[in-house]
Amino acid sequence: MDSNVHTENQTRPHSRKDRKFRPLPVPSVTLGGLFGERQDAICATTAKTLLDRCVEAGMLTAIDVSLPSPGVVLPIQPWDGSTQMFWDSDLGKSIETAAYSLFRSPNPELEARVDQIADLYETLQDEDGYLNAWFQRVQPGRRWTNLRDFHELYCAGHLIEGAVAYYQATGKRKLLDVMARFADYMITVFGHGEGQIPGYDGHEEIELALVKLARVTGEQKYLDLSKYFIDERGTEPHFFIEEAKRDGREAKKFVFHSFEYNQSHQPVREQTRVVGHAVRAMYLYSGMADIATEYSDDSLTGALETLWSDLVTRQMYVTGGIGPSAANEGFTDPYDMPNESAYNETCASVGIVFWAARMLGRGPDRRYADIMEQALYNGAMVGLSLDGTRFFYDNPLESAGKHHRWTWHPCPCCPPNIARLLASIGSYMYAVSDDEIAVHLYGEGKARFEMGGEEVSLSQETRYPWNGAIRFDVGLAKPARFTLSLRIPAWCKGAMLSVNGAPVDLDQVMVDGYARIEREWSDKDEIALDLPLAPRLLRANPLIRQDAGRVALVRGPLVYCTEETDNGTGLQRLAITGEPASATERPIPGLNDAIALEISAERDEADWGETLYREAAPEATKVTARFVPYHLWDNREPGEMLVWMRDGKGGVK
Amino acid sequence: MDSNVHTENQTRPHSRKDRKFRPLPVPSVTLGGLFGERQDAICATTAKTLLDRCVEAGMLTAIDVSLPSPGVVLPIQPWDGSTQMFWDSDLGKSIETAAYSLFRSPNPELEARVDQIADLYETLQDEDGYLNAWFQRVQPGRRWTNLRDFHELYCAGHLIEGAVAYYQATGKRKLLDVMARFADYMITVFGHGEGQIPGYDGHEEIELALVKLARVTGEQKYLDLSKYFIDERGTEPHFFIEEAKRDGREAKKFVFHSFEYNQSHQPVREQTRVVGHAVRAMYLYSGMADIATEYSDDSLTGALETLWSDLVTRQMYVTGGIGPSAANEGFTDPYDMPNESAYNETCASVGIVFWAARMLGRGPDRRYADIMEQALYNGAMVGLSLDGTRFFYDNPLESAGKHHRWTWHPCPCCPPNIARLLASIGSYMYAVSDDEIAVHLYGEGKARFEMGGEEVSLSQETRYPWNGAIRFDVGLAKPARFTLSLRIPAWCKGAMLSVNGAPVDLDQVMVDGYARIEREWSDKDEIALDLPLAPRLLRANPLIRQDAGRVALVRGPLVYCTEETDNGTGLQRLAITGEPASATERPIPGLNDAIALEISAERDEADWGETLYREAAPEATKVTARFVPYHLWDNREPGEMLVWMRDGKGGVK
Repeated sequence: MDSNVHTENQTRPHSRKDRKFRPLPVPSVTLGGLFGERQDAICATTAKTLLDRCVEAGMLTAIDVSLPSPGVVLPIQPWDGSTQMFWDSDLGKSIETAAYSLFRSPNPELEARVDQIADLYETLQDEDGYLNAWFQRVQPGRRWTNLRDFHELYCAGHLIEGAVAYYQATGKRKLLDVMARFADYMITVFGHGEGQIPGYDGHEEIELALVKLARVTGEQKYLDLSKYFIDERGTEPHFFIEEAKRDGREAKKFVFHSFEYNQSHQPVREQTRVVGHAVRAMYLYSGMADIATEYSDDSLTGALETLWSDLVTRQMYVTGGIGPSAANEGFTDPYDMPNESAYNETCASVGIVFWAARMLGRGPDRRYADIMEQALYNGAMVGLSLDGTRFFYDNPLESAGKHHRWTWHPCPCCPPNIARLLASIGSYMYAVSDDEIAVHLYGEGKARFEMGGEEVSLSQETRYPWNGAIRFDVGLAKPARFTLSLRIPAWCKGAMLSVNGAPVDLDQVMVDGYARIEREWSDKDEIALDLPLAPRLLRANPLIRQDAGRVALVRGPLVYCTEETDNGTGLQRLAITGEPASATERPIPGLNDAIALEISAERDEADWGETLYREAAPEATKVTARFVPYHLWDNREPGEMLVWMRDGKGGVK
Repeated sequence: MDSNVHTENQTRPHSRKDRKFRPLPVPSVTLGGLFGERQDAICATTAKTLLDRCVEAGMLTAIDVSLPSPGVVLPIQPWDGSTQMFWDSDLGKSIETAAYSLFRSPNPELEARVDQIADLYETLQDEDGYLNAWFQRVQPGRRWTNLRDFHELYCAGHLIEGAVAYYQATGKRKLLDVMARFADYMITVFGHGEGQIPGYDGHEEIELALVKLARVTGEQKYLDLSKYFIDERGTEPHFFIEEAKRDGREAKKFVFHSFEYNQSHQPVREQTRVVGHAVRAMYLYSGMADIATEYSDDSLTGALETLWSDLVTRQMYVTGGIGPSAANEGFTDPYDMPNESAYNETCASVGIVFWAARMLGRGPDRRYADIMEQALYNGAMVGLSLDGTRFFYDNPLESAGKHHRWTWHPCPCCPPNIARLLASIGSYMYAVSDDEIAVHLYGEGKARFEMGGEEVSLSQETRYPWNGAIRFDVGLAKPARFTLSLRIPAWCKGAMLSVNGAPVDLDQVMVDGYARIEREWSDKDEIALDLPLAPRLLRANPLIRQDAGRVALVRGPLVYCTEETDNGTGLQRLAITGEPASATERPIPGLNDAIALEISAERDEADWGETLYREAAPEATKVTARFVPYHLWDNREPGEMLVWMRDGKGGVK
């Protein structure tokens, strides 16, 4: 064993909570492999496509003060009895996607289009700093009258995120300065002083955006405003009731019946169950986690740990999909996971990635990073087609053949959300504190860090997630002492690690699911990590009634599914009989050489003619079932899809 | 073999189509047994309860011209973007229920209340005969402007049905005369003449109601109007498009997108698939079947046979529930039968009974009567609680414990619908032509017929559906020659029949699933029929993806289910391992001595703690699963319910 490797016992991790791990800036990571392919598609098509579709939906007309007010027309759509009035957010996320794509692939034409939008917003901004296309152009008299429903701060948050990304990508400050002025104005508007609004937004987002603004500007005041919004949420007297009274509305007529819908039913530190609208919940918890990190706020971290546990042990699909119900775009009851009607909005799985990454702000812990990887590779990544032009909004785990990707959606929140996540995924793979580099996700590429004023680089050479062998190369100008923490996923059996060829006894270095290697590192040090990706057949907790008697095939972080194009119609006719260890792995040429899995099954081939119900026994034929990664489904011929397959080995034996 | 028993070959039934079998009038059948119990509950509570709840909903205020117009308030409720404007139909069905209850159990107080409603309607009726509370009281200027959506003729139909029943029950003609005047006015309003409306109603019902009115009044003109509505439906130029133009509405803005919703997408004789709103479909086909019988219209009968086959071989749940989708309250795709989200409106299963009974108008055929029995005992009867006070609107085949009976519903169509069906069920049990009595359904009681001017009585002594032994006693003043047709259900194996102790070889007398006994009958003749009720485990056609790997337990016409109160929580943990022949039958004291079934099963008792997904195998414990009839569920402790149980014998072996 390498004598430089420092071992830790299990009592150490708590001390790490006093450190702050922050994500690596997007430009610091260059990616190849699967993530690189996705980013290439985003640079080549998605970034432009998003702006095109925003323009087609009339959004530039809506923010261009040289044109007449658009009125309540495009892009407004009927939406749960209300209207889609938050198009600033779509533009914000599209700008953010474009910005990340410019890191990877300069594109003067795309950059010019974003510059034009920044100009329009600068012109639109009011003297006092206020900025919101709807309330400046369509309903000028209604500013700040209904924070519960009208998404003003949500829109501001997404424009802030877009502005920060665009500044980082291009060095251009115009939109960043516009949004900083708006944030400065918000500081005067919100609070408990005379004439101030003692409230917060019905759709969380501003909280995490202000943290990004604070980090890029170095301004503590934006952190303080974020913390204010978080601290106020759910306190009494309830802001949304008081607001409705002031606005002459009947507070009880809230379409979602309960303030659980927007997580304002209790002060956030008292909340223990993940409830309501799934995306709102994920964005709130993300902002809370940022504030917990920045303020070392253990009361927030404690609440978040309870909420996290509720989500991942009672409310999360195997794909990392969350929020089964279309009615509230959110949560229902623990263990309620319908497969065919699963709503599982792409944005909600993207939101798990946001939250998980921020839970890692207080130190590496695979409880968060494993789920981040699961949600990313399955429930989130499924939202973008391989060619980058089509999108899933809701993500069932079963389809009879009618569920397909959209080119757009009346509420186009998901397309730019999955695109901006994948375009910036490098910043989720690594986090860094004063003396530690944590590797949360694996994938071909190179990352550059600054540790104590010195530049450190770390390359990954790997075909992960198709192959579990990963070689790291350290790059250093001169030797430096720091800790490198490598996640060993909980699903992985038989992981092996070596440093410069010397095996590391993982049992001696594991802390919270990470192999911590603290030593003096030198240039060209090599680390070899092998994570066996043996296919596994999972069953679901018996409390999930919809999955009883069913199995799901997974390999590494990827959940697999069957598609009609590989298996014919009637996927429910298949029952899996083979052992996962005997599954055959085959690359799929039509899906960028992704690994398909083939496993023995029996298929009920019976043709019952005109009989619906009878006593006859099934007629089984031995067949081979072919599985593909869930995130790749609906990229070939349209048809049926199924994740939870019937267990042909006898459900209860 | 009894020499009087006439045998028939298979070529005879077609000739029967030239005869007309009409249902026995409700007063001609007196019932005991299970049906009698339900009728007692309706007499004791439901009939009064329905009127009470109509009054509470403001319906009497709405029709009382001595009071101010109710305006668009009670009982109007938001309903699919429209309003519930068809309260005349609720009153009509409630009057009909009250009328049938008065046959069984005189109740002067109840009768006085119906008389009062009849008075109010008489006063409300316009000079020209028009009658519709909404368009006389709330929107007086909008009469006949939107037949597609506004239910005017639907309301009229239900009031006609109520008036006919009340006249038969009490001999009082007031409401009948009011409705006949309205029908006479309709005859002047509808047609292709100058100033007439060349149309029909968006919600079918008037068609079958006019047949009832014709039969009770002997007036051919009402049959002709019914036939007119049927013949017009779906012809070009499309009435609903022309109507929308005249009314200045955008025809394309029909919320249900396609005229399949109300079965006006094609002329009715060209329709081959059962589509759209399920109750509308059943009412249309019922009216078509009546007209086919009355006019011996083989073109209608041919279309109906195709539609029937589509319904029962591709779109019907094992419970006789139909219309899986709440979105259109109707049909989706063939073989699409989600269990937990099944809409399966009680009214739709009631509608199958209406349609099936009318398909028997052209002669006995168990293709119709078996389904009538299946829908009646399961999908329809489940809609009324044992005590007659609570109702199911939608009828899933699986509940996680939150689906329970209502005391009322914003659209209260189902409560009086199941009540009027059960209160009049005697008329569905028997049908009679010139020379044949058909027994379609079995149950303790006595029926009185007129055959060639002579009175014939037929008693059934039986505990059916709990026991399959049925003894018939014939009552005759003098011997008479006629055919008695007894249905032998397709599910029944080993049926035995004897007349006056002499066995009948069923193979020799079966025509279309009925044992036809043509002979000279004498007073006190005895017929013994034994229908073994062996429990059976059914599987579903593999094209029904939601039931793959599942079994349903049935006994005779009854579908069974498990309930939490008998089996604990987690019904999906159970997998059935026992053979149905080994099932134990036990009476349930709390459910009027209904027969419960107990069968061997294995139960996955594993407690996974905080793990959602893992590779571990299930842990099975041998248990006994207890089943109760589906129509009786949610009459005891509230909790989970499940029809399609996991098959523990290995799904595909």
